[in-house]
Amino acid sequence: MKKNRNFKHLLLLLMIPFAINVMAQDLKKLTLENLIPGGETYLFTKNLYNTQWWNDECIRPDIDTLYVISPISGKKQILSLRTEVNRVLEKNKLGKIQHFYNTSFPWPDKSQMLITLPDKYIVYNFKTNQIVKSVPLDTIAQNKDYCTINGNLAYTIKNNLYVNGTAVTHEPEDVLCGQAVHRNEFGITKGTFWSPKGDLLAFYRMDERMVAQYPLVDVTTREAQVNYIRYPMAGMTSHKVTVGIYNPLTKDTLYLKVGDPTNRYFTNISWSPNEKSLYLIELNRDQNHSKLCRYDVKTGELKAVLIEEKNSKYVEPLNPIVFLPWDENKFIYQSQQDGFNHLYLYNTEGKLLKQITKGNWLVQSILGFNKKNKEIIIESTKDSPLQSNIFSIRLKDGNIAPIGNNEGVHTGILSTSGQFIIDKYSTPTLPRNIDLINIAKRKSINLLKAENSYENYRMPAIETGTIKAADGVTDLYYRLVKPADFDSTKRYPVIIYVYGGPHAQMIHNKYLYDIRGWDIYMANKGYIMFTLDNRGSENRGMKFENVTFRHLGVEECKDQMKGVDFLKSLPYIDANRIGVHGWSFGGHMTIALMLRHPDIFKVGVAGGPVTDWKYYEIMYGERYMDTPQTNPEGYKETDLKNLAENLKGHLLIIHNDHDDTCVPQHTLTFVKACIEANVFPDLFTYPGHKHNVIGHERVHLHEKITRYFEDFL
Amino acid sequence: MKKNRNFKHLLLLLMIPFAINVMAQDLKKLTLENLIPGGETYLFTKNLYNTQWWNDECIRPDIDTLYVISPISGKKQILSLRTEVNRVLEKNKLGKIQHFYNTSFPWPDKSQMLITLPDKYIVYNFKTNQIVKSVPLDTIAQNKDYCTINGNLAYTIKNNLYVNGTAVTHEPEDVLCGQAVHRNEFGITKGTFWSPKGDLLAFYRMDERMVAQYPLVDVTTREAQVNYIRYPMAGMTSHKVTVGIYNPLTKDTLYLKVGDPTNRYFTNISWSPNEKSLYLIELNRDQNHSKLCRYDVKTGELKAVLIEEKNSKYVEPLNPIVFLPWDENKFIYQSQQDGFNHLYLYNTEGKLLKQITKGNWLVQSILGFNKKNKEIIIESTKDSPLQSNIFSIRLKDGNIAPIGNNEGVHTGILSTSGQFIIDKYSTPTLPRNIDLINIAKRKSINLLKAENSYENYRMPAIETGTIKAADGVTDLYYRLVKPADFDSTKRYPVIIYVYGGPHAQMIHNKYLYDIRGWDIYMANKGYIMFTLDNRGSENRGMKFENVTFRHLGVEECKDQMKGVDFLKSLPYIDANRIGVHGWSFGGHMTIALMLRHPDIFKVGVAGGPVTDWKYYEIMYGERYMDTPQTNPEGYKETDLKNLAENLKGHLLIIHNDHDDTCVPQHTLTFVKACIEANVFPDLFTYPGHKHNVIGHERVHLHEKITRYFEDFL
Repeated sequence: MKKNRNFKHLLLLLMIPFAINVMAQDLKKLTLENLIPGGETYLFTKNLYNTQWWNDECIRPDIDTLYVISPISGKKQILSLRTEVNRVLEKNKLGKIQHFYNTSFPWPDKSQMLITLPDKYIVYNFKTNQIVKSVPLDTIAQNKDYCTINGNLAYTIKNNLYVNGTAVTHEPEDVLCGQAVHRNEFGITKGTFWSPKGDLLAFYRMDERMVAQYPLVDVTTREAQVNYIRYPMAGMTSHKVTVGIYNPLTKDTLYLKVGDPTNRYFTNISWSPNEKSLYLIELNRDQNHSKLCRYDVKTGELKAVLIEEKNSKYVEPLNPIVFLPWDENKFIYQSQQDGFNHLYLYNTEGKLLKQITKGNWLVQSILGFNKKNKEIIIESTKDSPLQSNIFSIRLKDGNIAPIGNNEGVHTGILSTSGQFIIDKYSTPTLPRNIDLINIAKRKSINLLKAENSYENYRMPAIETGTIKAADGVTDLYYRLVKPADFDSTKRYPVIIYVYGGPHAQMIHNKYLYDIRGWDIYMANKGYIMFTLDNRGSENRGMKFENVTFRHLGVEECKDQMKGVDFLKSLPYIDANRIGVHGWSFGGHMTIALMLRHPDIFKVGVAGGPVTDWKYYEIMYGERYMDTPQTNPEGYKETDLKNLAENLKGHLLIIHNDHDDTCVPQHTLTFVKACIEANVFPDLFTYPGHKHNVIGHERVHLHEKITRYFEDFL
Repeated sequence: MKKNRNFKHLLLLLMIPFAINVMAQDLKKLTLENLIPGGETYLFTKNLYNTQWWNDECIRPDIDTLYVISPISGKKQILSLRTEVNRVLEKNKLGKIQHFYNTSFPWPDKSQMLITLPDKYIVYNFKTNQIVKSVPLDTIAQNKDYCTINGNLAYTIKNNLYVNGTAVTHEPEDVLCGQAVHRNEFGITKGTFWSPKGDLLAFYRMDERMVAQYPLVDVTTREAQVNYIRYPMAGMTSHKVTVGIYNPLTKDTLYLKVGDPTNRYFTNISWSPNEKSLYLIELNRDQNHSKLCRYDVKTGELKAVLIEEKNSKYVEPLNPIVFLPWDENKFIYQSQQDGFNHLYLYNTEGKLLKQITKGNWLVQSILGFNKKNKEIIIESTKDSPLQSNIFSIRLKDGNIAPIGNNEGVHTGILSTSGQFIIDKYSTPTLPRNIDLINIAKRKSINLLKAENSYENYRMPAIETGTIKAADGVTDLYYRLVKPADFDSTKRYPVIIYVYGGPHAQMIHNKYLYDIRGWDIYMANKGYIMFTLDNRGSENRGMKFENVTFRHLGVEECKDQMKGVDFLKSLPYIDANRIGVHGWSFGGHMTIALMLRHPDIFKVGVAGGPVTDWKYYEIMYGERYMDTPQTNPEGYKETDLKNLAENLKGHLLIIHNDHDDTCVPQHTLTFVKACIEANVFPDLFTYPGHKHNVIGHERVHLHEKITRYFEDFL
């Protein structure tokens, strides 16, 4: 673990007592409807939605009023009124807006806003109150991508790509164009990429015709019907992705000449500033060899392989390269090659100019640049692996300086010049704070300091701390939650809430250490709630993460058992009443813990679990597990069916019938194995729901989980 | 209810104490493996399998020896030895037999037996030990129908019909030929019908292409796949059935000219003795108008409608007509038109000659004829609605005389002449008895008196009796089971096991009153087990059955609540601990009882339930419910989703993912309604199983059910 860490966060590991102002008997009781998103009386933390920049002025939309706030003076003025905008829209037969939250301000030098409605885009001059432009849109259009430079509009209808009303592709049903590909792995979130000047559109095309179809049954039709999804399972045939370039002027499409796309990943698309080249990071199916490639957009030819990375376990490119705004020949490349995600400066010849950041912490994102000072603004874990803080990095000498405080978890939105930032953050004691920061002066203006929405409610006490991982060396963070009326002479049942998989962390220095509503609910009912971020989880670097390689869940369970040892060492824990609950990867962990340690866990509730990695999808699954063909022993070791006979405690598995992330086959084959092994799991499903139960039924889910622990723990 | 009933069965309603010879502490405990079919140590009652007739000699097959027993003298001789048969078979390269149970003796005048092997039929002369004939057969052939008169062999491969290696039909996948149709309703059990002399083959053809497909998901393949079944739901489009006549000599096929088969049922096929006519009972989709029709097999023309029946509720033809062996112009027609199933004699002009049987009891089957005495041999409930007894009826005057004793439940196999019968029966105190009866002399020879397989096991006490139905008039039979160590001063929890639907009866005067193994198991655990055959169930006549018309489950629940009232009147019942369990129709009843009487039932386990009759199939469902279009109020009243919000107790629903009788949509839509109503059922599934859990996993199922009651009742 990192050595030079700022010690400040250690202070936060102390217990924080809440709700001390009111006598206990006067405190209200929190219900699941208060605590679970989707609940009818869910206690939201106050927020300012869609606060953003118009050049270097802060825009604060509201329902009836659009405000502009000077980041220098803090002066707040009315920019526009909804009554006025709607008068103009209705006069032009363009409908109405219900609020200002769907407005954006992509033109720094114009008094214009872009209004996004379900059936149209409207460019509106908020000074003259005139419609600049109105672009109608098919309501069934998806993946809309409006080019603010020239007003070109890309979108998809069903599986095909359209630009300005013209079909760019004419593919059969199972060839998807203009959508995110590779199951949104490798940082991919979208399928269209306008060039910097808006002249060309790069887009993904994914041929899924060779991918096996998984049947999800819809019981809400008159007679049940199948919704098929193309779901490529580990070791099976994968889809084929290519990248097209469309010219809206000539209406020509050119596909990059990548050769046979079989078993290759095309990730992290970015344009050269001059629009002549497209950069991709290509990856082999084994995910252990990446290449930053430059293609000529005129010919589609590969022009150069600029950077290659190999790793005996895996490489995982997650960020497109970013060009320096002041030098078209230099770009920033992100890599985990030294063990932590850091920034590297390259030139377009592929020459490494320097490693910009370094240390046992990682860069989480590049927010942008201060062009004047030639600084890069980033979010990083530099202050603590439980935090995200904002820093400016002087490119010249790598000097790194904090922006905003060094507490909590920050997300920043940079102004056009890069000299101002909207800094939104939360700390263990502060639900939400929004500041406008003048970066040069490190001076901030507060826009919001949200009140504690649990004020006057009875609340548990929350502690965090570290214990050693199963390797005896690594520090792992835990969160321990105690009932409000905690009595250290009593013994309490404990429930471990676990996730445990990569790309996620359960404990953050956010409000109440990022506790889940259900944990509060259960602590109020008299349970000790415990969560530990084991090795394999996020924000701790590659070595911490990839110890799980080729046998996902095994090292993670060992670490969780260290958590159990810790719990058992506490005098107020009833070691005969330990429960465990988790969803998805955490569902796998829940079952794995119960089967590998049947005498420890009395009750478990697993949601949407992976039970056998061969039923999980290729992109995520093979990164960590390779294929069933090349890693049979790893698949065998982690196949929970092979451990089914160990089941002893009460295990409820909840798996939804439309789970297209972790298909129902996981649970049904596991249940079958349990029946064959003469053990007795329980089962439930939320018909129609996908991987997670969302909406109001999420309250039902948590009542269901609660009852199971109450019945059996 | 019937008035002139024999009072004998009332004696049987007294409590029968078991296991009185051994001290209680020495008695062994019955396990589910002992009690559930499929269990590893299942306690079978001894049987003589495939005992049958060769002319008027009784054949008793065994593994190594084939015996022949004279029904007159009782003398038992060896007819054949397996070693000898196998020597001959192997010499002829025809394989081996493992036992004599797959032999039959259809040639009264020849020393021949028919040996049925998976890949061939062998006609074997057991006197000369010679192969008479060997007919090879495709191992994938199904629905085999060997004509013993001329050796013609009909069978199906996939959906098409074959005779003697020639494809009779060449239909696309969803047109089925030579198989049972109409989902085996209307007494239909097969799809091929050889004419009396074997010259022609009548067969069913069912076009299912217009029927909606229900998807059942198989999770045992590499990636889950769908097994589609054609499942016509109430009110939806049904299949179309026609009847073909195939001539093996000319290889011609003629289809009966029935006109448009849409929404018509073609049932109960029978041949005229002269092979010139085919008789069918045709029924309209509304199932309230049947017609006995005669078709000319040469032309396919309808020649006559001989008998018509109409009923404001429904008519349900279940038996083909049977010609008198001594008069080709007269046949027996079975009808429930006077309220009970009885025999009627008609001539081929369609003239009613007489009603042969009459009374408040019903004919269950015609076993055959004593040609010499012109008697019809039947099974009937004449002695008790809980019994089947065998009677001979003199056609001349209707004189009815018992064959065998008037206790228990008998099944008979008549010899060729009709003068002898194999009488297999069970009584409440006798697990199984097999006699050979010389009918004329009413003299019997005992072949088997099976021992009580529960000897030396600890057993509960079983009582039966009657209570009044909710109509205040009708007697309903119940079975009450008490733990062996019953103490009348204590209070016991009770579990009601319920079926409740038509065509089934739970209480019979069979061994231990037909108690289920699980009932014994639970009684041994200290539960009172109770079952009541409500109105709507079998063997009590039409009025008793059809009171449920257009709102299945409603009257049935009212009767079951009379059972609850009765239970509550017993001082040793704990009225706060009443549970209910049932499968299929009984699954519907279980849920319906819990929702209509939420304060009565603490725990329920429903298996494979109907929750909404619109998801059930047309043939069965519309008979009792009409269609959702014509009976919306009845469908609404019985749709358990509309009552979901009443759920209060613990309800476990078990529904298998390959249930093609009662599709999983029933349970999944009900669970969805429960979630929406914020109530909390539990759920389980046996992956790969159909409507019932069979094989060894049936033990797991009953352990699962047991645990649920133990956890919550």
